[in-house]
Amino acid sequence: MNLHGKNFIGDQLASGGGDTFRAVSPLDSTPLEPAFHAADLKAVDAAMQLAEAAFTSYRQTTGAQRAAFLERVADEIMALGDDLIQRAHRETGLPETRLIGERGRTVGQLKQFAQVVREGSWVDARIDTAIPDRQPAPKPDLRRMLIPIGPVIVFGSSNFPLAFSVAGGDTASALATGNPVVVKAHSAHPGTSELVATAVRRAVVACELPAGVFSVLHGSGKVIGTALVTHPSACAVGFTGSRVAGRALFDAASARPAPIPVFAEMSSLNPIFLLPEALQAQSTKLAEGLRNSITLGVGQFCTKPGLIFGLSGVAFDQFQKTLAGLLAAVAPATMLHGGIGEAFHQGLAQASGVRGVSLLARSSAAPDPKQTHGEAVLLATDLANFRQHPELAEEVFGPFAVLVSAPSLAELEEVARGLEGQLTATIHGTAQDLQQAGNLLQLLERKVGRLIINGFPTGVEVCSSMNHGGPYPATTDVRFTSVGTAALARFVRPICYQDFPPAQLPDALKAGNPLGIRRLVNGQME
Amino acid sequence: MNLHGKNFIGDQLASGGGDTFRAVSPLDSTPLEPAFHAADLKAVDAAMQLAEAAFTSYRQTTGAQRAAFLERVADEIMALGDDLIQRAHRETGLPETRLIGERGRTVGQLKQFAQVVREGSWVDARIDTAIPDRQPAPKPDLRRMLIPIGPVIVFGSSNFPLAFSVAGGDTASALATGNPVVVKAHSAHPGTSELVATAVRRAVVACELPAGVFSVLHGSGKVIGTALVTHPSACAVGFTGSRVAGRALFDAASARPAPIPVFAEMSSLNPIFLLPEALQAQSTKLAEGLRNSITLGVGQFCTKPGLIFGLSGVAFDQFQKTLAGLLAAVAPATMLHGGIGEAFHQGLAQASGVRGVSLLARSSAAPDPKQTHGEAVLLATDLANFRQHPELAEEVFGPFAVLVSAPSLAELEEVARGLEGQLTATIHGTAQDLQQAGNLLQLLERKVGRLIINGFPTGVEVCSSMNHGGPYPATTDVRFTSVGTAALARFVRPICYQDFPPAQLPDALKAGNPLGIRRLVNGQME
Repeated sequence: MNLHGKNFIGDQLASGGGDTFRAVSPLDSTPLEPAFHAADLKAVDAAMQLAEAAFTSYRQTTGAQRAAFLERVADEIMALGDDLIQRAHRETGLPETRLIGERGRTVGQLKQFAQVVREGSWVDARIDTAIPDRQPAPKPDLRRMLIPIGPVIVFGSSNFPLAFSVAGGDTASALATGNPVVVKAHSAHPGTSELVATAVRRAVVACELPAGVFSVLHGSGKVIGTALVTHPSACAVGFTGSRVAGRALFDAASARPAPIPVFAEMSSLNPIFLLPEALQAQSTKLAEGLRNSITLGVGQFCTKPGLIFGLSGVAFDQFQKTLAGLLAAVAPATMLHGGIGEAFHQGLAQASGVRGVSLLARSSAAPDPKQTHGEAVLLATDLANFRQHPELAEEVFGPFAVLVSAPSLAELEEVARGLEGQLTATIHGTAQDLQQAGNLLQLLERKVGRLIINGFPTGVEVCSSMNHGGPYPATTDVRFTSVGTAALARFVRPICYQDFPPAQLPDALKAGNPLGIRRLVNGQME
Repeated sequence: MNLHGKNFIGDQLASGGGDTFRAVSPLDSTPLEPAFHAADLKAVDAAMQLAEAAFTSYRQTTGAQRAAFLERVADEIMALGDDLIQRAHRETGLPETRLIGERGRTVGQLKQFAQVVREGSWVDARIDTAIPDRQPAPKPDLRRMLIPIGPVIVFGSSNFPLAFSVAGGDTASALATGNPVVVKAHSAHPGTSELVATAVRRAVVACELPAGVFSVLHGSGKVIGTALVTHPSACAVGFTGSRVAGRALFDAASARPAPIPVFAEMSSLNPIFLLPEALQAQSTKLAEGLRNSITLGVGQFCTKPGLIFGLSGVAFDQFQKTLAGLLAAVAPATMLHGGIGEAFHQGLAQASGVRGVSLLARSSAAPDPKQTHGEAVLLATDLANFRQHPELAEEVFGPFAVLVSAPSLAELEEVARGLEGQLTATIHGTAQDLQQAGNLLQLLERKVGRLIINGFPTGVEVCSSMNHGGPYPATTDVRFTSVGTAALARFVRPICYQDFPPAQLPDALKAGNPLGIRRLVNGQME
């Protein structure tokens, strides 16, 4: 595997004018070859100008053409073979089996989006035909559909080096709907990014698409990230990462002379509510399920449960002991990169230091800093103390959770009312529990993008009914999902054509429905 | 007609704690009785707390219940009878026939939205059923739909005292989809606002809805407007008005600890491109059409054409003369209020004072300041000069347009490329013209929400295919329309229910499709 370490500015490989840096393997803290070149502001402008130029023709491509492109991207990623898995493993510490699964999800979602755009009904075509003799004024012919929004900036995330990175869900959504993409690669896995970028570039060439449809830049979010988001040609932003970074990009985008939408997925505690009968009936099963969900991927999922609420009493005490025992037995494991490891340990220290919080469990084996280890940690406190310390409701990214015991269901409702926005919330309860928890369910519905009963939040299906989003700070835009086919809606916008002669109309809106898509015509579904 | 001049805080009439003010009739510059009470920040908080409390139950109402409510609002508005038309006429100077038409549009859109929510498919239900034995992991049951976003702030606009005001499109969209509404009434027509608010309150009572579902406050946008938008319970904002005010609200909403969406419709020049053959063939008809469109409603429509481009030459010269003659013959007419009249005359003075701009026409009759008259004005310049003076591309709200002659189609394309976002753009051309103007059409498509061929931009149909929106500064969110049934999409957001027992699922997502709505079930439309 030969890596060049350069930026992809359309079809050009460019050293990009910035400093060089190396990835550091979290597995053993060794720097990895080669050196990667950070892009400077000139490189940003070059990539954006190419994207702008490419948009003119790329937006005119048919759904079938873009479907073929996405499928080719998927094929080219698979063709990278084990090189991709090996490099991603070295750069992220994630096990090969996980990376193989994530690659499957990545190519799966490219193919799923290809199907959606080949079928074509996503444009949400609506037609109202003219009534020339209407009184007092004639009714014009009006035809409306969704069209691409323009060049999209995608920020690769560290915790999904494939599925939320160079050719991940944001890129796939944007390309599927006709938008050029400029990716800011995550600096923790630049080699993985280069390999995937190479695959996408091969697909661009094979499909004879304009060069500027896809670029990938290395460098710091603070410098080139902000420059990308504030570039006049940028029309939307996809981001998955920290609350601080996501908010900074949102603020920069909102302060532009012409603001643009930012889809930042940032922070979530994914609270779990354990109701009394369920806890009584299946304490061990719940503890095992939560152990799995808290430590899956070393706790580095945005849907990891970080807060677990129950009613004080014997059953919850017993559950806490069981979960503590299970988590103590979990071996420390390699986190994604040094920065995440440091942030995790800082978060642990802060939460553990809160007055009235007790340490229930810590992995019994010692973590090895050289292997960038994160150890499982479980804290406990009571509801009164939790409410006095809002810092306990801040996300700690890693295998960590806080147990909170509440005196009553009414108090649980109060705490739900006070929660910030979340990607998910989960209730475990029997039919009887759920009947009594109607208010809690209603309250949680306002706080989350996905509400789960008797399940676990980790494991996000890529399908049309998924909603991976939620109120701030889970995301910056509660109206959209970043996972599943509805994610395509982020990078499109409506346009209405009035009194267009047939020759000027797009196929989706022509008489006779040549694309055979679902359309609303004079109020009736076609 | 007895007006009390108070604020509607849910079911309470409150003097609101602020100063008092009177509307001034633009017809004769006389102050109108009674005095109206401006709300203070305490009143804002009271209305928002009521809205928050009402949301808990209002969001649970059925589509049929909300449809009945909207239809009752429509009936109560009609029951206000001529009192409403007379007061609106006194407060806005708009002719009675126009106001009767606007009332028809207002109740029509309430009834149309009622139909949409009664039918119910707007929730965009998507279901993927469980596959418990899937390998390597079971697939959960996932069901997704749209739900209301939460209390919505609506700013009444001055130019549509009924259709974009207390019970206008924004209010109707928000109420239809289950959101309480707090209206900031426009200070130019407080009596009209009070009458319509009374009608809505009657419907709230008749339909036994919670009091906080609807409040109306009087006062300044700078004070209570900002307080409403930054209130923790506010979840979205609808606004139609000036660019400065809209941007201020957007900035305030974006700077909140938890930002919220703002749908501000602000500024549009609605450029018209007259292509050579069309100009040759029907110069007089085009001039008459444009005269009508420029002066309709004294030019006080957001879709009024303010820029008219043509290719220099005999045909365009002849057209300019014809249009100038027609506009000179248009009598000055009463504008909406003194502030709009002043802004109009300031805009005129600024545009007329630009070097290289000539005055082609001005209403030959003299305007009467006491009657708040606006006179028709037509300026002309050439493309080179237009491009040197970006202030000519700023909206002047009133019966005013600038003619711009260009040396070539290529230059027209260049100017289109440089335009800011617009609600509409229009091309007049024969089949031959349009064939040659493919690039221009493509360029304009990126700049607008609605593209018109051989028509005029004024006259916005309320239907499912309408898109009344566009790139900034036409609006702050290009992804949504504020007119037509798609406007409902502004105040909703998705949620996903995972593994919910049937009893906990909303009807829209239950097995057997009890509501009989369109749903996507395992990838197939039901």
